[in-house]
Formats: sequence, structure tokens, C-alpha cells
Amino acid sequence: MKNEIIAGVDIGGTKIAVALANTDGELLLIARFPTRLELGPHSILDQAVEEIERMSVELGARPSAVGIGCGGPLDRRRGLILSPPNLPGWDEFPVVGVVERALKVPAVLDNDANASALGEHRRGAGRGFSNLVYLTISTGIGGGVIIGGELFYGVCDGAGEVGHIPVLLDGGPSCGCGARGCLESLCSGTGIARRAREHLLAGAQSPLLSDRADEITAKLVAEAARGGDALAQSVWDETIRYLAHGLSSVVVTLAPEAIILGGGVASAGDQLLAPLRRLLSERVKILPVERMQILQASLGGDSGIHGALILGERALGNIPKG
Amino acid sequence: MKNEIIAGVDIGGTKIAVALANTDGELLLIARFPTRLELGPHSILDQAVEEIERMSVELGARPSAVGIGCGGPLDRRRGLILSPPNLPGWDEFPVVGVVERALKVPAVLDNDANASALGEHRRGAGRGFSNLVYLTISTGIGGGVIIGGELFYGVCDGAGEVGHIPVLLDGGPSCGCGARGCLESLCSGTGIARRAREHLLAGAQSPLLSDRADEITAKLVAEAARGGDALAQSVWDETIRYLAHGLSSVVVTLAPEAIILGGGVASAGDQLLAPLRRLLSERVKILPVERMQILQASLGGDSGIHGALILGERALGNIPKG
Repeated sequence: MKNEIIAGVDIGGTKIAVALANTDGELLLIARFPTRLELGPHSILDQAVEEIERMSVELGARPSAVGIGCGGPLDRRRGLILSPPNLPGWDEFPVVGVVERALKVPAVLDNDANASALGEHRRGAGRGFSNLVYLTISTGIGGGVIIGGELFYGVCDGAGEVGHIPVLLDGGPSCGCGARGCLESLCSGTGIARRAREHLLAGAQSPLLSDRADEITAKLVAEAARGGDALAQSVWDETIRYLAHGLSSVVVTLAPEAIILGGGVASAGDQLLAPLRRLLSERVKILPVERMQILQASLGGDSGIHGALILGERALGNIPKG
Repeated sequence: MKNEIIAGVDIGGTKIAVALANTDGELLLIARFPTRLELGPHSILDQAVEEIERMSVELGARPSAVGIGCGGPLDRRRGLILSPPNLPGWDEFPVVGVVERALKVPAVLDNDANASALGEHRRGAGRGFSNLVYLTISTGIGGGVIIGGELFYGVCDGAGEVGHIPVLLDGGPSCGCGARGCLESLCSGTGIARRAREHLLAGAQSPLLSDRADEITAKLVAEAARGGDALAQSVWDETIRYLAHGLSSVVVTLAPEAIILGGGVASAGDQLLAPLRRLLSERVKILPVERMQILQASLGGDSGIHGALILGERALGNIPKG
């Protein structure tokens, strides 16, 4: 393959990353800016396109294709964003067409969790594995499944929705999907913070959390647990118990070579991973869990933009609209 | 491919099936006999080999390869059976080597659930699907995963162990695997019968089950539920609730085109499938479950022997031992 320039765009609810890379996978230029939702999708994409044009001038070379990762739901075949909860006003927005018309090169779209799975698989903690499951644990829980070295999509591109593995047989917190007791409702950053607040409201004592009840985040819970706070530790332990329960299903169904955890909550590193590995081994007796790698994502917040760049390579040779 | 004769052997704890087919997939001859465990593995395999020889004479053609399906755990690469619970005395038994030496043709081995998944995929309810999950619900719960039209094995061939999806977060009945509260411990034939007996022992009234407490089977529970017995109906409903909970994890992880249920418990047909489809749709809100097929296996007790014959085709061209 001739070495060409690829552009990647990673569109999140709070920030957007834009990058140029070559087809050897070298990241050449990257820029980040906040998602000014009030501007609407057209102006936001104009910003991204201008950034790509500016970087092309700086580099002295234009991209031959663009890969776009974005929060779902979306229709990657038609290149449409469908009413994503973190991008209000983007309903049925034809992001691929808009980018193709602006840059006159082909573009492809996929959801951000799939893009991150791809990024980690090719350039991060997942290198060298054929089969892996990636989870991003942040505001919500998203996921992507790599099988035989490629993204596995399933019916309606639904594979990898591991945030909606049911953990509780009955009840549990309402999840964004409309069900109750899903992994996301319990173990996402939002879910962890909610559970800590509920304990405080129920009268639990916590030297490190009690006077900060209004600003509790998963990060604060993790910090307080490290600081010896018993309530925070119990919320953290419960998180890992739920996560191990949910991931046990993934382990026995796919026996993946690796499970890779990204997103803000996974940045707790071994505070999360060490007890998770232990509980998974205790819970799954039928398989040698120690033969599967339970790893932290290694590209941090850049899994998504790396994935978008890899997606972009797949657009090479497509015919752009407009 | 030249049309050749393939032999299949499906070794179960209570019976063995032996068959000859051609490489067009036509079943030519089939025989079944009880597994006389007291004879030990060598004599039992001698019987199977003699049956293949007898059928070859009847057909006027010898097989070019043999496929063997057998209860696990086993090592398909080395062709060894490893201490399977339903075949006592078969520890480290080199079934592939023994068959190859006896018949002078190559043989391959896989576990019975994978063989059945393959059988249903190629010749049963799974025809035409690329991605599916097969479950056999009988004494235990086994499974096989087909991805991209082929068996997916995972680390240590562990994929498809869906009987060990955890359903209960805490406690629950002991499972054969050593854990508690697995799908198998609750929803296998054994698990269903155990739950019914426990309700009776706890004093529950049941016109159709109370006087048969010692002979309760899942089949009897299903019949009594159809007959209007309230306790049996509640045990049956609970079964489907557990099953829907466990399969929800499979649905959101893989979004398979089909989930195919075989084994004795699945022979209840729509008494199982109709409420299962409904509960899965209620539980999984993030994906359109109605786009996935939840089907009964269509080869009945012959899924395994069909799968063994398909496995046999893969041995063609291998070099036999001895």
C-alpha cells in the first residue's frame, strides 16, 4: 500500500479530537477542542474540517480518507448519527456525507467504542491478540468485540453492548437503555457515584465522602478507598463484584484472549484490575481465567482517535459523495 | 471435492450413535447402541469400530475419515478425552489414535456441544446463519458458538461454555463446575427437577407432582405445567426467567443472528421458546431482539451425529496414526 495521509475525527459529547497519520500508523499531528454543543452539528463539523485543512497545510499533504468515531446510536452503513444521548440535536445527521463533501475524500463512520476497541487492538494493549473484548467504563459503559483480528458487529451492529449485560436478576437502578440492573447502571462512573451517594443518604458514615456528597464522582470514590475510607472501599468492592459477575458471562461465552478496560474508571489501574482478576477466577471455575489477559487500555484517552485513523484507512478507495 | 464416505461417532454417557454419510452430506446408514460403561473405553470403541466395518460392508464402501463427538473436557488437538464426568474411566483416553489405528483413516475429535452446534448450523435450524449460539439443555447445559460460519473456540477451546454464565449474584445451587448459581445449575434438566423437588420438600402443594416427588424430571415439570399445575408452572416460569437473564448477556455481547436451543428440555418447544422470546425482549432494551431468531434445534437427538460427520470431512487428507 502506498503511504497516504489519513485523517481521524473522534467526536465526543465534551471534546473532539482531530488527527492526521500516515498509513504506517504514525500519528503526525493531533488537535483537541471542546464540543460546543450549542453551535449545532454543522458548525462543529466545520470546525473539525477547518482543523484538518489547517493541519494539511502544516504537513504539506492532504488526507486521502477520513475515519470518524462518534457516540451511538448511529448507522455506519448510511453514515448517519441517530439521536445520540450525548449529542443532542444530532438526530439523523449525515456526518459522512457532510465530511465527504467538505474534504472531497471518502469517509467512514463507526461508534466510539468500536473505534476505541480497534485502536487498542492495533496500537494499544490489545496488540498481538486475535480475539478480545474492549470495554470503556466512563459516564456509561460501551464495548467492542474483536474476533479473528477484526471488529465483530452482529445483528444491527449490536455486538459489544456489554454495558447492558444484566447483573441483577430483579430490579436495580434504571439504566439509560430503559432496563434495570444493567452493568452500566451499576459500574459506570455515574453508577458508582450514584451508589456512593445513596449510601450516604441512607446514613452511612464516611470521613472522606460525607462532606462532599454533592460532588461525588467515581474518581473520588476510588481515591477515598485508597485513603482508607471504609464506605468508599465497600462501594468500590461492590463495583468490582458486579463487574466480575458481568464479565464472567463474556468469559464463558467467548473465552477471549484478552479483556481490555479503558475509560476514566479503568484509569484506577490495579486498584480495579487486581481484585477483578481474582474475582473472575473465583467465579469462573470451568475455564482457566489466568490464561486470559485482563488489561488496562494503554492509549488512554487516545484509543478513540487511533481507532478513527484506522477506520479512515478503510475508506481509502471509496467514492466520496459530493 | 470428490464424493467420499465419512464415518461419524457420537459418544454419549448413555448411548452411542455411529453413521456413514457421503461428502454431499447425505446420511447413508446410522446405528445406535447403549454405552455399556462397565466395559471400559477400549471395548466400547471396539463396538463402534465394528459397527463402522459392518456398515461399510453393507454399503460396499469404506470411510475415508472419521469425526468423533464426545462429552468434554477433552483435548481436540491431541485427540484425548480428559476425565469427562459422564464417561468415568476414560481419563486421558486417546480416542483419535485408537480409532485411527483400528480403521487406518484419519479421525478428528471435538466436544459434543460443538459437534451439535455444527450439525444444527449446517443441516438443522441454523442453516443460512453466519453467526449463532447453540445451547443444549439436557442433564447439563453445553454450548457452541459459530462465528463467520465456523466454530469459534477461544482460549483453551473454552468458548461456548454458556452453561456457566452466572445467573445469581450470590449463592444458588452448586454447579458441576465448582461454582454456584450458574445457568446449568438452575436450568438444566437436573436443575429444573431439583428446584421442583425443593419446593415440594418445603411444603408446596402440587396436585400433579406431590405424589411423584421421587421421580420428578424436567419433562414431568413441563407436562404438569401444561396440565395446569400451579407449582410446576411457577418452576417453569422461573426456569425461563433464569434462562432469559443468562441469554441476555449472550445477546448484548454478540448480537447473534440466532440462538438455537437443543437437548431434552428444549423439546418443550413453544412452551419454552414463546415466553423466552418475550422475556428476552423485555430484558434487552438496547437491541432489537426481534431481529434475532430464538429457535428450537431441528435435528433433535441427531444434531451430534450430524456434527460428527461434518467434523469427519475435516479429517480428510490428514495422516492417520498407526
